[in-house]
Amino acid sequence: MTVLVLNGPNLGRLGVREPDVYGTATYADLVARCEAVAVEVGLDVEVRQTDDEAEMIGWLHEAADTRSPVVLNAGAWTHTSVAVRDAASQLTEPLIEVHLSNVHAREPFRHTSYISDIAAAVVVGMGLDGYAAALRHLGSDSGGS
Amino acid sequence: MTVLVLNGPNLGRLGVREPDVYGTATYADLVARCEAVAVEVGLDVEVRQTDDEAEMIGWLHEAADTRSPVVLNAGAWTHTSVAVRDAASQLTEPLIEVHLSNVHAREPFRHTSYISDIAAAVVVGMGLDGYAAALRHLGSDSGGS
Amino acid sequence: MTVLVLNGPNLGRLGVREPDVYGTATYADLVARCEAVAVEVGLDVEVRQTDDEAEMIGWLHEAADTRSPVVLNAGAWTHTSVAVRDAASQLTEPLIEVHLSNVHAREPFRHTSYISDIAAAVVVGMGLDGYAAALRHLGSDSGGS
Amino acid sequence: MTVLVLNGPNLGRLGVREPDVYGTATYADLVARCEAVAVEVGLDVEVRQTDDEAEMIGWLHEAADTRSPVVLNAGAWTHTSVAVRDAASQLTEPLIEVHLSNVHAREPFRHTSYISDIAAAVVVGMGLDGYAAALRHLGSDSGGS
Amino acid sequence: MTVLVLNGPNLGRLGVREPDVYGTATYADLVARCEAVAVEVGLDVEVRQTDDEAEMIGWLHEAADTRSPVVLNAGAWTHTSVAVRDAASQLTEPLIEVHLSNVHAREPFRHTSYISDIAAAVVVGMGLDGYAAALRHLGSDSGGS
Amino acid sequence: MTVLVLNGPNLGRLGVREPDVYGTATYADLVARCEAVAVEVGLDVEVRQTDDEAEMIGWLHEAADTRSPVVLNAGAWTHTSVAVRDAASQLTEPLIEVHLSNVHAREPFRHTSYISDIAAAVVVGMGLDGYAAALRHLGSDSGGS
Amino acid sequence: MTVLVLNGPNLGRLGVREPDVYGTATYADLVARCEAVAVEVGLDVEVRQTDDEAEMIGWLHEAADTRSPVVLNAGAWTHTSVAVRDAASQLTEPLIEVHLSNVHAREPFRHTSYISDIAAAVVVGMGLDGYAAALRHLGSDSGGS
Amino acid sequence: MTVLVLNGPNLGRLGVREPDVYGTATYADLVARCEAVAVEVGLDVEVRQTDDEAEMIGWLHEAADTRSPVVLNAGAWTHTSVAVRDAASQLTEPLIEVHLSNVHAREPFRHTSYISDIAAAVVVGMGLDGYAAALRHLGSDSGGS
Amino acid sequence: MTVLVLNGPNLGRLGVREPDVYGTATYADLVARCEAVAVEVGLDVEVRQTDDEAEMIGWLHEAADTRSPVVLNAGAWTHTSVAVRDAASQLTEPLIEVHLSNVHAREPFRHTSYISDIAAAVVVGMGLDGYAAALRHLGSDSGGS
Amino acid sequence: MTVLVLNGPNLGRLGVREPDVYGTATYADLVARCEAVAVEVGLDVEVRQTDDEAEMIGWLHEAADTRSPVVLNAGAWTHTSVAVRDAASQLTEPLIEVHLSNVHAREPFRHTSYISDIAAAVVVGMGLDGYAAALRHLGSDSGGS
Amino acid sequence: MTVLVLNGPNLGRLGVREPDVYGTATYADLVARCEAVAVEVGLDVEVRQTDDEAEMIGWLHEAADTRSPVVLNAGAWTHTSVAVRDAASQLTEPLIEVHLSNVHAREPFRHTSYISDIAAAVVVGMGLDGYAAALRHLGSDSGGS
Amino acid sequence: MTVLVLNGPNLGRLGVREPDVYGTATYADLVARCEAVAVEVGLDVEVRQTDDEAEMIGWLHEAADTRSPVVLNAGAWTHTSVAVRDAASQLTEPLIEVHLSNVHAREPFRHTSYISDIAAAVVVGMGLDGYAAALRHLGSDSGGS
Repeated sequence: MTVLVLNGPNLGRLGVREPDVYGTATYADLVARCEAVAVEVGLDVEVRQTDDEAEMIGWLHEAADTRSPVVLNAGAWTHTSVAVRDAASQLTEPLIEVHLSNVHAREPFRHTSYISDIAAAVVVGMGLDGYAAALRHLGSDSGGS
Repeated sequence: MTVLVLNGPNLGRLGVREPDVYGTATYADLVARCEAVAVEVGLDVEVRQTDDEAEMIGWLHEAADTRSPVVLNAGAWTHTSVAVRDAASQLTEPLIEVHLSNVHAREPFRHTSYISDIAAAVVVGMGLDGYAAALRHLGSDSGGS
Repeated sequence: MTVLVLNGPNLGRLGVREPDVYGTATYADLVARCEAVAVEVGLDVEVRQTDDEAEMIGWLHEAADTRSPVVLNAGAWTHTSVAVRDAASQLTEPLIEVHLSNVHAREPFRHTSYISDIAAAVVVGMGLDGYAAALRHLGSDSGGS
Repeated sequence: MTVLVLNGPNLGRLGVREPDVYGTATYADLVARCEAVAVEVGLDVEVRQTDDEAEMIGWLHEAADTRSPVVLNAGAWTHTSVAVRDAASQLTEPLIEVHLSNVHAREPFRHTSYISDIAAAVVVGMGLDGYAAALRHLGSDSGGS
Repeated sequence: MTVLVLNGPNLGRLGVREPDVYGTATYADLVARCEAVAVEVGLDVEVRQTDDEAEMIGWLHEAADTRSPVVLNAGAWTHTSVAVRDAASQLTEPLIEVHLSNVHAREPFRHTSYISDIAAAVVVGMGLDGYAAALRHLGSDSGGS
Repeated sequence: MTVLVLNGPNLGRLGVREPDVYGTATYADLVARCEAVAVEVGLDVEVRQTDDEAEMIGWLHEAADTRSPVVLNAGAWTHTSVAVRDAASQLTEPLIEVHLSNVHAREPFRHTSYISDIAAAVVVGMGLDGYAAALRHLGSDSGGS
Repeated sequence: MTVLVLNGPNLGRLGVREPDVYGTATYADLVARCEAVAVEVGLDVEVRQTDDEAEMIGWLHEAADTRSPVVLNAGAWTHTSVAVRDAASQLTEPLIEVHLSNVHAREPFRHTSYISDIAAAVVVGMGLDGYAAALRHLGSDSGGS
Repeated sequence: MTVLVLNGPNLGRLGVREPDVYGTATYADLVARCEAVAVEVGLDVEVRQTDDEAEMIGWLHEAADTRSPVVLNAGAWTHTSVAVRDAASQLTEPLIEVHLSNVHAREPFRHTSYISDIAAAVVVGMGLDGYAAALRHLGSDSGGS
Repeated sequence: MTVLVLNGPNLGRLGVREPDVYGTATYADLVARCEAVAVEVGLDVEVRQTDDEAEMIGWLHEAADTRSPVVLNAGAWTHTSVAVRDAASQLTEPLIEVHLSNVHAREPFRHTSYISDIAAAVVVGMGLDGYAAALRHLGSDSGGS
Repeated sequence: MTVLVLNGPNLGRLGVREPDVYGTATYADLVARCEAVAVEVGLDVEVRQTDDEAEMIGWLHEAADTRSPVVLNAGAWTHTSVAVRDAASQLTEPLIEVHLSNVHAREPFRHTSYISDIAAAVVVGMGLDGYAAALRHLGSDSGGS
Repeated sequence: MTVLVLNGPNLGRLGVREPDVYGTATYADLVARCEAVAVEVGLDVEVRQTDDEAEMIGWLHEAADTRSPVVLNAGAWTHTSVAVRDAASQLTEPLIEVHLSNVHAREPFRHTSYISDIAAAVVVGMGLDGYAAALRHLGSDSGGS
Repeated sequence: MTVLVLNGPNLGRLGVREPDVYGTATYADLVARCEAVAVEVGLDVEVRQTDDEAEMIGWLHEAADTRSPVVLNAGAWTHTSVAVRDAASQLTEPLIEVHLSNVHAREPFRHTSYISDIAAAVVVGMGLDGYAAALRHLGSDSGGS
């Protein structure tokens, strides 16, 4: 099983962009971390990033067709894009929403999400550990829940 | 360092209460899982549950005095108790909010939290894995975030 | 079958507290009335009152475990306590919400209830007759509804 | 004393209309139940139904003129008709609002009522038992409230 | 030119209905007053009242067809009836809205009107004098406005 | 199968009433158009109009009893009448909501409908073509949807 | 008895200011009309205008001290000035609110008034006739309301 | 005259995507249906779909330049894209908004549209028949509205 | 006359808890200050603190029974507890609400109070001086207000 | 140090204006009380009142220039004047907001204040004692807060 | 052509008042800058400031009478004064709204303006350059817009 | 220093698109005007336009990397795109928001901006002069603000 880890707009700038909000880890660190955890829990993983909504929608269509679970950090689209939601609604396998920062402690418009109510789980504010937690939950980690 | 894992009202009923919402794992499973992960990541952990708001407030005062990190599943108080928030605001170490179910996919009154904006991170919808993720984030797990 | 008649905060003060709002019947009258109606309709009844939310939650857990119907006047918690709602959600038998006064003719914050949408029925403004109606509905009284 | 039991639009369809919501009792059952309880508690009762707002307003004027208590299930007008409210405001004797189903567990527009704050009491979700409770409260039933 | 003075639900009860709100003048007084003022200012007037929305709509259609000005006290329909508004929108001559009581000092739902923004003028709180003012404004009274 | 085409208040005035909003077609044109399309698609049709809410409710009861599909232009009641909605909820066959004008481009109170969420489909702004589209959808027209 | 007719900001510009909204009558016409009607109904009248809120407050204090009725067109202050409301609240004699234009057909911020709920009556949209109606209501005109 | 039938994000997945919501017809069926109806009513038609907002905007610019009518199913952008609205506002010929499903019976965020108030007509919930109705309204079908 | 000075949750932590918000004075200082002022103005005073809502409710019942004035700093319950409000409503002597910090300059949820509208007076932002002001107002201090 | 005690519109009418709301103490009593307390706590005080917003703004500018603390009862401007707020924001010394009556128990528009969040402290409902408390807090009274 | 540059309350304090918000330029600098730019673009200019709403209203009346364009920084009145708006509505020449600071990045009550929708243009956050931009737009500067 | 002048969707259509709203100047005029002003104030400028959100985000990333000031007319994205906001938040040099038309006088959804509170300044309604003002503010123009 290959898990798609899909990242939305501005996330390619990680480490450069507002480090006080998003930390100093770079996007390369993010990819490396996901790949390391995937090995650890016995998953294949593919990590992607795009600033183009149509590309993100295409990846979600691909995940629906290949019946892949998705770890989704839709970034800003989380709060504005019904199109991304509609694409994500087509998934057959679990969807886990991740945000690097704690969106609940930021601007009010970041408190609403078009993704959360169709996701299985949501992790925010843990930085790269959030991706790790999501992958472990999809992989071998399971405590009876 | 001892992490306090504090659980609020009705969580002692885990496995009995609405298993379609909360899963079949029992409260004893929750405790065991936390203790196992704590060993794994080199933390001491103490898991408690109460239906009494005053007791929860007292535990948070204790955590403030002993400078302990807290994993908090405040249950229903999440959405209604400023008193628990005020006690949690006194913590000096990180606070991680956990919910077993995906509160964002439930009733609207579960979409607001008095805890989230004073927490470092929030994990919802992962069942017991959410506690594991929180403890790992507090412990050895850290990807540069 | 034993019906639990559970009363929340300040209801022990009945007859003393704001008689223009709540009438002159005392809490002892309330207990006596419930016991009399129970006899009439062939039910066992147990009437309790508490100002302590944890105790109320415990009683609701007990009712869930013993599969008892509940007549609940949660008083002020009606409008504020998700914890009491969550405990009441675990009941397997019918829950009937009762208020002595007509809450709809009072302050706006009394117009919302965390209990009503999980109750089978709601009776307000009938004073002690509301308890009688609830018990009769649970008991022998049934007109085809 | 004659109590008028007045039913609004669509209630003549009882037993035919959405039986999962309103139960299988027919409108004839409703009339019979009211008459039986009236006998039991020593009241005269007259049960009527109309889909015509003007007719309902006329009946309420009649009740005002004859100083009759009213049990009112205004159905859909509950949520929309200030005209019915204004007619009901002219009553000199108690008004009791009844709904067969638990309106609080249905669509949001059924959670507001133009009648409740001018009624003495409200009973919802008890099916025909609600009418019985209302008549008993108007009749011999009185526990000190 | 004949002015139609059209009165909505419950207004036939004037003098009987809530005299502390609506005054002690009767509906007959209202008719007499309108007829007296009409004579004074050289208008024909026809005063009608109905509790039936369809009848009111028909009268407004008639006024549209006969190109009659209308003085409208739609009573409770003011706040709820788009159907009456739609009929009134078809008038070709001025429409003046009148209310006996000062609706702005009463319940919030009386503060909104489906009539006011399609009326030429609105008079509230003057009792029968409001009808007189409306008729004078339609008739000989004109100060340059 | 006979389709009932039911029209609410003021629609009998078509062609007379606000032709800039509703067009110059008359109510007779509307009837003729529906009958012509019905022949074309092999349906029986009966077109009615009323300004009386009780009559509309009765027609909807009739359609429920005869298991007839309904094309409903409830006019102003669309936005205000829960009673009409409740009657329409009893239908067993498809309900299609039609409005001559584009209600979404008019006053805000025309943007809410008590009918739309219980209808199968909604057509607005097409004038008489909207009725044609509704009847074709109920009749032979079907593209796989 | 002297009635004070008090006009607020910009009303001195009558006839100059937006004649499509306020008409072509000048402020001098307004004064003349009030004086003429006062003679007709046997009142003394004093008509004033100010753009200075403190002056208006002072005039209302004067009216309170001299127990004078007031006809008040507070203009823009109607919608914004609690200070004017507080001064008007001290009046012992009737207060009648007048607006030249139909404020209900204008911008939403003109639909709220700090004056209306403490006034006895309100007349809008009648131009100078509104002042006449107010003075007649205070004077000899009284139809039993 | 060539009509552009423009479809927004996720609509290329028709038949695959949530068939319980959108039906089993495929996007190819949609194209075929539109082309068949176009022949029937004597129109040229060109059917396109894109997940890329910039492409959709470009097509609308093209339609503005070629003075083509547009049938627009903007999908998720309906509820979120002012950019698509602004492009559609430039059209010189009629715009008809179509949705396959009844958006009014779905999530609240689908009840608002940036397109409806600039469209001539809106058809929802008719599946492919909605496109047919739109094309017929643009073509030979016209009942006098 | 003994005045009860009642303090709610987290106030026992004064001087420890968020000193930048609440100052460096300890709870012992608070008690001492109240006792000193009480002596000064000739009152008996009893100062208590609890984190347990039931205990607070009990103390308010006691104050109602002993007809004692109350100085109440309900802390977080101010904003959430109808139960405390209902207990406080039973007092027969003046209730003065005190907060150490200026709640109006803090989070929005601290701007609403279930206590203020049933209190005689409210003092916020004066630290311990607020208690002193409350006691003086209850005691000998009175300037004619 | 001279403290400016600044009073806004209508406060010069104290004792005359609505004594049931504001008490029977006159404005002269208010001045005398402030001067007496000032002597007691070792402050110079200057008490002023105006109905003119520009004068109040000027006094606040003066206080900013002379680095004077201010006790401000802005009366009605509290709820409406950003201009007074902006002037008060320039103060370098503490600002204490005072209201004679308990604004929280009055009309909703008195529950919001443009002053409170820039004030150090707020005292309401204590009559003249509120001024005394404010002056004592600015003067020698200080219990460690 | 003389342009009036009109400044509202507190703006005379420029350079003294909150320099972190408004910059260190003084009101004299503001006047000088406007006069210099006016020379540059061939306009006469008159710069005024007042804390008195009546004076501002008078200046706007003057500008209406002399058909002068206006650059208006209404300061705090921007957000609260319908009276200033009504005076500004009478202008026959362009009105440009200017604010020194970026009001959109400040308190929410500064995000609404009674002036913007009747202004031709709005410039905020440019300090004195905003006045320069406004004058250039009124003067020789024009790029085809 | 090179200033990037970035224009969002539909702005390439300037002069073609709704000239009554946006004026008759073309996009080429816009570019020419910016380049002319840049020369005048000694700046390099690069003017771009795109209908593709990803391209706009990329340009903002480029501006962040090259530490370029930005003049941004995000068009419709202003009101809907958090992604553009997040990209713009990364800028290190000043951002000035420009709109050709006065957005405050248009539809309500144009009154909110995701850009304004992170911009240094905002200019609306000046047509091409708005770009000129922005460039001058970034360039040599500075009056002491």
